[in-house]
Amino acid sequence: MKNSVNRELPEALLKQLDYQGFKTTDIGQPDIQRVAPKVHVTTGNDKVCDSIAKVVQQTVKDGMTISFHHHFRNGDFIFNQVMRVIIDSGIKNLTLAPSSLTGVMNDVVIEAIKAGTVTNITSSGMRGSLGDFVSHGGLKNPVIFRSHGDRARAIEHGDIKIDVAFLGVPNSDRLGNANGMQGKAVFGSLGYALMDAQYADKVVLLTDNLVPYPNTPASIKQTQVDYVVQVDQVGDPEKIGSGATRFTKDPKELKIASLVNEVIVHSPYFKNGFSFQTGSGGAALAVTRYLRQAMINQNIKASFTLGGITKPMIDLLEEGLVNKVMDVQDFDKGAAESMQKNANQQEIDASWYADPDNKGAMVDQLDVAILSALEIDTKFNVNVMSGSDGVIRGAVGGHQDAATSKMTIICAPLVRGRIATVVPDVTTVVTPGDSIDVLVTEYGIAINPKRQDLKQALSKVSALPIYTIEELQAMAAKKVGQAAPLEFTEQTVALVEYRDGTIIDQIKAVKD
Amino acid sequence: MKNSVNRELPEALLKQLDYQGFKTTDIGQPDIQRVAPKVHVTTGNDKVCDSIAKVVQQTVKDGMTISFHHHFRNGDFIFNQVMRVIIDSGIKNLTLAPSSLTGVMNDVVIEAIKAGTVTNITSSGMRGSLGDFVSHGGLKNPVIFRSHGDRARAIEHGDIKIDVAFLGVPNSDRLGNANGMQGKAVFGSLGYALMDAQYADKVVLLTDNLVPYPNTPASIKQTQVDYVVQVDQVGDPEKIGSGATRFTKDPKELKIASLVNEVIVHSPYFKNGFSFQTGSGGAALAVTRYLRQAMINQNIKASFTLGGITKPMIDLLEEGLVNKVMDVQDFDKGAAESMQKNANQQEIDASWYADPDNKGAMVDQLDVAILSALEIDTKFNVNVMSGSDGVIRGAVGGHQDAATSKMTIICAPLVRGRIATVVPDVTTVVTPGDSIDVLVTEYGIAINPKRQDLKQALSKVSALPIYTIEELQAMAAKKVGQAAPLEFTEQTVALVEYRDGTIIDQIKAVKD
Repeated sequence: MKNSVNRELPEALLKQLDYQGFKTTDIGQPDIQRVAPKVHVTTGNDKVCDSIAKVVQQTVKDGMTISFHHHFRNGDFIFNQVMRVIIDSGIKNLTLAPSSLTGVMNDVVIEAIKAGTVTNITSSGMRGSLGDFVSHGGLKNPVIFRSHGDRARAIEHGDIKIDVAFLGVPNSDRLGNANGMQGKAVFGSLGYALMDAQYADKVVLLTDNLVPYPNTPASIKQTQVDYVVQVDQVGDPEKIGSGATRFTKDPKELKIASLVNEVIVHSPYFKNGFSFQTGSGGAALAVTRYLRQAMINQNIKASFTLGGITKPMIDLLEEGLVNKVMDVQDFDKGAAESMQKNANQQEIDASWYADPDNKGAMVDQLDVAILSALEIDTKFNVNVMSGSDGVIRGAVGGHQDAATSKMTIICAPLVRGRIATVVPDVTTVVTPGDSIDVLVTEYGIAINPKRQDLKQALSKVSALPIYTIEELQAMAAKKVGQAAPLEFTEQTVALVEYRDGTIIDQIKAVKD
Repeated sequence: MKNSVNRELPEALLKQLDYQGFKTTDIGQPDIQRVAPKVHVTTGNDKVCDSIAKVVQQTVKDGMTISFHHHFRNGDFIFNQVMRVIIDSGIKNLTLAPSSLTGVMNDVVIEAIKAGTVTNITSSGMRGSLGDFVSHGGLKNPVIFRSHGDRARAIEHGDIKIDVAFLGVPNSDRLGNANGMQGKAVFGSLGYALMDAQYADKVVLLTDNLVPYPNTPASIKQTQVDYVVQVDQVGDPEKIGSGATRFTKDPKELKIASLVNEVIVHSPYFKNGFSFQTGSGGAALAVTRYLRQAMINQNIKASFTLGGITKPMIDLLEEGLVNKVMDVQDFDKGAAESMQKNANQQEIDASWYADPDNKGAMVDQLDVAILSALEIDTKFNVNVMSGSDGVIRGAVGGHQDAATSKMTIICAPLVRGRIATVVPDVTTVVTPGDSIDVLVTEYGIAINPKRQDLKQALSKVSALPIYTIEELQAMAAKKVGQAAPLEFTEQTVALVEYRDGTIIDQIKAVKD
């Protein structure tokens, strides 16, 4: 069977897992029965525990679904400690359902798979040795990749039923009132973890900073928490930030950023009260800088920025160029530390951010989204999941979600080294071309033919070289040649959900 | 059948409504499956509506359960407008499930009952003409009275399944992000309404103040709201506050307050980090003033105060005598207006405040609660619901909930006019004597015999005349004589739940 983006899907597997193929980006107006957790009643006086082992023994059983958040990113000290105990306890057949997996978690996940401790994984993404391991068929059951909004949807539907959530926090009181804003290992917004806190049957907080009761603001509340475990250190503050807050000097990134800026300021969306999401990375940060100048020049103020937040975004807030920062995750220390000081930097959970089965999510109100790509094809389909060698090395993140914006701009270099970014067909479709409006490369831009309005608006701008996407693809092919087709085995190692829970693509095991 | 506080209950009715009689104040550690709402998916761009009639037509059907909050108290302009439309629409057999009913709602509720629009009511309380109407058998089905914590419990269990919640707010954006802190008719905490917003299938906000998107802080979130209705005025700011913020000059109230203060400061709970709830009313406010001085004198600071909050409580916060104000409801303008200025005045929902079926509620952590009584009997059972004539004229409020504190003090005059407050048996048991520790009257105090520890601690205090409760009852009887027994018909007009959902008492129709 093929879905509406022409991807061959494993019919028997989809039937077995009760999946439909992707049809449309239009979510429609279904009525959804949400689910709710089971609550073990307590007055709360016996939650504090000094041993991960004791809590694991009392909560985790064979076959359960356990979860973690990835707000500590590569500074995470929680995941490995808890998984160590779980593996050593001989527990089997767990489903691992973190908000995402970062590099520091790879070794222990591979060990857990080999030991039979973990037999299913759902995540936003994976990279490095774990992506390689899975792409070579290391996990029998297919990994389910979900966007941040889709994970929220799946949790609120009951598609992901979390039995036990292990959530590291830089502060908590003895009943579990906690936030991400105070302490040594501050990461700011608890956006993704708030889903786990609200919906998991058992919620275990782990903290190195037990503060007096009652702790406020309580992003996570005592009414959600079963255990508070004291640990030596929850994370390394130096490794929580992405580090990418410096202004790029790469001429290619600067060129792309300046073209993205031209697209935005000449679009019909660049007016008082507009909203945008940029994400992190060199080009995105440079866009923010150009956009700042354009906003000052034209006396335009944004109503909100959204998403993963960086310090340059906070600067816009403090300058009064942006009214609100709607913050589901902080990418650097500056953004993380600012949250408790600025009331207009509003923490939002992943549902509010992007659950499509909602009474309105923030992404539905977004004017402009600037997103990246590993590959984009002539149907504007985007791959942010697998490398040109077919190996998993990415994450859906908020890509599918933010792409619902009124103008979604993909910024990517035409080629990376000897590898084309603009291709006839992406290796893995993550975000359907239907939701992409403009591609910006260092050589010029391409506009989705369904956006004739944008084409008309932007064709007047002399600084904007406009091509068809086929022309950009041909330009890339001319530079690096046509890549030999990848070879895969018949084993499906991962299924990529669209944000509505249908399957947009599969990832097969690579041939060695 | 009789329950454990020796109250005769209507067995057939309890069976029909699937109720158990009250057994114990000990909640235990049950496992509770919570419920969740049905969500009608939308991007949120079509929520704003200028007509209550249109929204009622689209949401309310015969037999549904509808709800309101009472944060506007006697300044409420929402309840009557919405009920007017519903009555005029000819809708029948509704269950009315507001957080409470205030006097300004009485006429329209009586009209709705007479019209067959409302056939069931659950509320925290009722007073005036409505209490009189119900007490004379005006509503066929018994009213169910629930404490604020019990209402939260019932909503989280599904005992109250709200189909449509109509929630007035002093501000909202076009998607339904709203709070109680900004605008003309500010009431501060949205504590009770947050339950409705989270659990109702359809949530309708009504506001006179549509603000730019996105509105923060968002106590109620766009992910919870279906409609935003613009109205001329949501409430009268002058009537939202209870007005009782002045310091009492009534010598009886001052005497009681000074004795309450003596009890507290000589109890084992008066030490750094203690917590308390006082409520409103002349004596309660006077207690706060005495307590303030004692805290300054002895250099003691409280960790938190809880409950319905008054300006004098905010003054303690600002003076640094209290670390946190945990705020489910504001009783006056001063407290309401302070919320957005002071990060340590934390808005809490009714579940966090007092739901007993929880992973810990705030009331479970409370050291001292000061509560009132219409009657208290020699078993320390308290009535805050029916008058000495048997007519309904009160509210459970947070009474049963806060009475779970480590030391619960009832403060009440020995007699009111020609009516005894301390009686052999209360007319209606609302809060079981098991959770009451001390009674303070202007003539002296009585200590629950089960608290020999308190008796020992307080008997050393020369300023505290200690009696048995039987002695206080005899003293009251001597002053006003023995009241003639009340006469009731066989019709049960109301059932009073204990906070765990069992029935602690019934209220019968009065004989004319």
